[in-house]
Amino acid sequence: MLMQTHDARLKALREELKRRDLDGFVVPISDEHMSEYVGDYAQRLQWLTGFGGSAGFAAVTLTHAAIFVDGRYTVQVREQVDESLFDYRSIPGDKLGEWFGEVCADGARIAYDPWLHTARWVDALEREVKGRGIEIVAASSNPIDAVWADRPEPSGAQALIHTEDLAGQSSAEKRGEVAEWLTKEGLDAVVVPALDSVAWLLNIRGSDVAHTPVALSYVIAHADGTAELFMAPEKVTPELTQHLGNAVTIRDRDAFEVALGAMEGKQVSVDPDFGVAAIAQTLRRGGAEVSLRRDPTILAKAIKNPAEISGHRDAQARDGAAVARFLRWLEETAPSGEVDELGAAAKLLEFRRAHGDLRDTSFDTISAAAGHGALPHYRVDEDSNIPIPPGSIYLVDSGGQYPTGTTDITRTVWIDTPEGSEPTAEMKDRFTRVLKGHIQIDRAVFPQGTSGGQIDALARQYLWEAGVDYGHGTGHGVGSFLGVHEGPQRIAKPGGGQAGTAQELHAGMILSNEPGYYKPGAFGIRIENLVLTVEKEIDGAEGRYLGFEPLTFVPIDRRLIAKELLMPAEIAWLDAYHARVRELLAPQLEGEDRDWVERETRPL
Amino acid sequence: MLMQTHDARLKALREELKRRDLDGFVVPISDEHMSEYVGDYAQRLQWLTGFGGSAGFAAVTLTHAAIFVDGRYTVQVREQVDESLFDYRSIPGDKLGEWFGEVCADGARIAYDPWLHTARWVDALEREVKGRGIEIVAASSNPIDAVWADRPEPSGAQALIHTEDLAGQSSAEKRGEVAEWLTKEGLDAVVVPALDSVAWLLNIRGSDVAHTPVALSYVIAHADGTAELFMAPEKVTPELTQHLGNAVTIRDRDAFEVALGAMEGKQVSVDPDFGVAAIAQTLRRGGAEVSLRRDPTILAKAIKNPAEISGHRDAQARDGAAVARFLRWLEETAPSGEVDELGAAAKLLEFRRAHGDLRDTSFDTISAAAGHGALPHYRVDEDSNIPIPPGSIYLVDSGGQYPTGTTDITRTVWIDTPEGSEPTAEMKDRFTRVLKGHIQIDRAVFPQGTSGGQIDALARQYLWEAGVDYGHGTGHGVGSFLGVHEGPQRIAKPGGGQAGTAQELHAGMILSNEPGYYKPGAFGIRIENLVLTVEKEIDGAEGRYLGFEPLTFVPIDRRLIAKELLMPAEIAWLDAYHARVRELLAPQLEGEDRDWVERETRPL
Repeated sequence: MLMQTHDARLKALREELKRRDLDGFVVPISDEHMSEYVGDYAQRLQWLTGFGGSAGFAAVTLTHAAIFVDGRYTVQVREQVDESLFDYRSIPGDKLGEWFGEVCADGARIAYDPWLHTARWVDALEREVKGRGIEIVAASSNPIDAVWADRPEPSGAQALIHTEDLAGQSSAEKRGEVAEWLTKEGLDAVVVPALDSVAWLLNIRGSDVAHTPVALSYVIAHADGTAELFMAPEKVTPELTQHLGNAVTIRDRDAFEVALGAMEGKQVSVDPDFGVAAIAQTLRRGGAEVSLRRDPTILAKAIKNPAEISGHRDAQARDGAAVARFLRWLEETAPSGEVDELGAAAKLLEFRRAHGDLRDTSFDTISAAAGHGALPHYRVDEDSNIPIPPGSIYLVDSGGQYPTGTTDITRTVWIDTPEGSEPTAEMKDRFTRVLKGHIQIDRAVFPQGTSGGQIDALARQYLWEAGVDYGHGTGHGVGSFLGVHEGPQRIAKPGGGQAGTAQELHAGMILSNEPGYYKPGAFGIRIENLVLTVEKEIDGAEGRYLGFEPLTFVPIDRRLIAKELLMPAEIAWLDAYHARVRELLAPQLEGEDRDWVERETRPL
Repeated sequence: MLMQTHDARLKALREELKRRDLDGFVVPISDEHMSEYVGDYAQRLQWLTGFGGSAGFAAVTLTHAAIFVDGRYTVQVREQVDESLFDYRSIPGDKLGEWFGEVCADGARIAYDPWLHTARWVDALEREVKGRGIEIVAASSNPIDAVWADRPEPSGAQALIHTEDLAGQSSAEKRGEVAEWLTKEGLDAVVVPALDSVAWLLNIRGSDVAHTPVALSYVIAHADGTAELFMAPEKVTPELTQHLGNAVTIRDRDAFEVALGAMEGKQVSVDPDFGVAAIAQTLRRGGAEVSLRRDPTILAKAIKNPAEISGHRDAQARDGAAVARFLRWLEETAPSGEVDELGAAAKLLEFRRAHGDLRDTSFDTISAAAGHGALPHYRVDEDSNIPIPPGSIYLVDSGGQYPTGTTDITRTVWIDTPEGSEPTAEMKDRFTRVLKGHIQIDRAVFPQGTSGGQIDALARQYLWEAGVDYGHGTGHGVGSFLGVHEGPQRIAKPGGGQAGTAQELHAGMILSNEPGYYKPGAFGIRIENLVLTVEKEIDGAEGRYLGFEPLTFVPIDRRLIAKELLMPAEIAWLDAYHARVRELLAPQLEGEDRDWVERETRPL
């Protein structure tokens, strides 16, 4: 097979656009399900440009091309993408529609793939090009696919059954609840395109996408409790067919579009955040009436049932033992200066594999030494890998996918020198303020009806007091052997552009609790546990009050704590937390690992 | 003059509707400026129904009538409004449009006065009646005015000059900034209908409305820095004409509508929250293009300049001395059981009159004994007045209008018995939690860009911890010798229906800080100071950080404090606050008043 250069690929795409009488095309990182992580078959931006980041898009006309990335990727895009082919543009400042306006002649026809964008994205682009003489059109098929000779096939891996003892509720019951909702709302059916929603609704899992155990498929669920599952035939085993039962019809994934077009006269619900534009377009063309509503599985999926909660406790306990062994190994080995970021990540994976039924990491491990820790989304690879310097702060943010639950934990630790060393006063001050914020979220009590946006400041207050802050959210939802980032809830600044800050929190929701601090070029600090939202029993309470309970149990590095900054209640929290860490981890460990946990969890 | 009964008034209105071929009409408490407090001439709801509350509306058809009030007024409406004439409806649950749908025949024409509602209100009503066969029409004049024989004239009081030493900036400068904004936005003019905006822009004041020192008028400001002021001729003195200068044309208030209709071809900005529907309707009919934007004076007015800040400090210091004298008098007199709520309010007014250049109260004093304190919006009158019981909690929320500034303070105090008594443990617990929240807001530090909605939880966290909360916002903006409730900023729960929680806070903004707790039928607690938003100088700060500084200085009742619930930093705050109270008030007081302040401000 001829190895195409990016130059040749761009030329081929332009020829294809000319053949189709199009003047331009938009290339996102996206799939038909608006997934956070997409399969290799959908890595069109990387194929076209060489860009390996997780967010961004390219725009190509017959004469111009540009790649749009955000602040996280301004350096990386320059290293990976040829400037002679693609201009660099930075979002959110630079607007796609304005760029087309600058480089296109009047009457230009710009295409997008309606299977890769939401209708809301299309509307926004149309608003941006308004008055610029540009027409936005849906491509009938993706022009890149026509010229990408060696494009990988979508994964053909078999779909797996998520047993009822783990799921805590049968698919029939879940479909029954969706059917009830449809009936109440006067709707006939709902299209479920989000892969984790499909997985939750049918109690199935898969291995088609990195980090999230889902199977490529769609569902149309009906008001009578039946559903159609659209999935490539090679993925369907006899066990799956039996698991799904008679009320779920299995059809080829390729039949989805035809099925949408055959819903004439039906009232069909589509989620505007997860349904790509093509879904509503096809429904409407076929004579269905589209109602834009939130996917009815999203809130139900976020509120974990007792079986899921107990599964999470099991997964977090095993995961905690693995992380603790890793931290002990690191404490012993790293002062030599011979451990590098990749080596540390590999060792952590080794411990995770040893301790539980690990199926995958839940995201790319952030193994960040010294200044790398100051990049909250740092991703270590062969090019960026550095040895972890003795006498520095090391940050590791990682997680595992276990059939019982999904984990996500960050620990920040001091890497000693062989002769012994101390973190600076500044490092301890910042670490302690981050810890205080973490404790405030963990201890927070709030009335039913409170959103994550309302309590975000509790995590930031001690950093703010020192005139510093962190540029990311405080907490995201987490799935049950599903996405490590799961909506709809979020703890973050309201109005900061992150979805979910207005979502009311409910008992049963799992969130991360991860305040941080980042000193550019020097160090990064983040302390992350997962927490479960629980009802709080309070004497004399007027109404229903909620709070959190930690799910993650791994020692917090006492060498980085400035004890004088902690209030008695905070010290009591830390001691109680560490006592629970010891209780949970010690029985799983032996010898020096066990000694280490006992030492690290003694009262402060 | 014949004393009309409400029955006769309702009949007269219906006759008028018939004459105009209308089937119904809506009667709000509102004026042409969307004011919070309206003049007697605009008290149409009270005239028609007898209802004396501050919020609500009536709807009248030829056969039915209803009055819509919120939860605060469910008792009052039953006492004041005749049920045989008006059905009671409760907002926000009951919808006006649905009510019209229930009682109107197909094809009914329902009128509203376009000078008393925003276009947004009209849109909402039209959405509510959609599909119910009802037509919503703007009345050419208010049908109540046609039948209200003894309707008071709008106030003819002279407008007053707000001198530049108090305003801190000339009207010409302010108009210059508005003109710059208009030019930048490509607009020709802005209509300013809000009375406090007019007052701020032209540095004028008035006495046409209770509690807010404004003069009935409109402004149209132009991109060349000139303005037209529409005001009844009897209100205009030669001094005012001179003060306004050549760049401001004074026209009769009645000429406003004609002027709006004569702006053909102009781009004119109107604030959708303060411009009544008639303004945009008249502009459009006359051929102007309407651009809906926030009134450009609102943010500028909210950010106080050094002269206004210094004026506020003066007003708060005088006001504080008056309130302190009142509290000492109350402490001495009330244990006899012979002080009632009205008497207390009158005494407080007497002290305020003695201590400063008082022009008005800034709202109706809330003088609330025992269980009345649990009604956050309690208004004492002859019917509700009760003696203040010795051995109970008394709450007083009040404020004054001084030329230098507007005040608003709440203190909650223990009323002793002659033999001496103690508040219950519950009272002290709740009072102390309210105080802790108050202190947390006062001490808060937050980055520029933070909104009031983000910090609201800091005030509630200690109450939440005990399973309780309060059902109102934590803080509202306050004007400079203007409205005691002034936008755009607000500290409150985001998503709670109160405007302004997403507004970024700026140095120079004044807010109230007033957490509370209410035990129905038993007692109410609220501790309210005004605070100034200031820039915080922090060593090593990364970016610009803000915080608050108290403006109000009056002792906080130590008898209600459970000291063991306070952290050392909170005790330090209280002691420092009280030291400042003493420093500011003692020089203004004599004899026993001075002794009292010194006693009440000693370290805890």
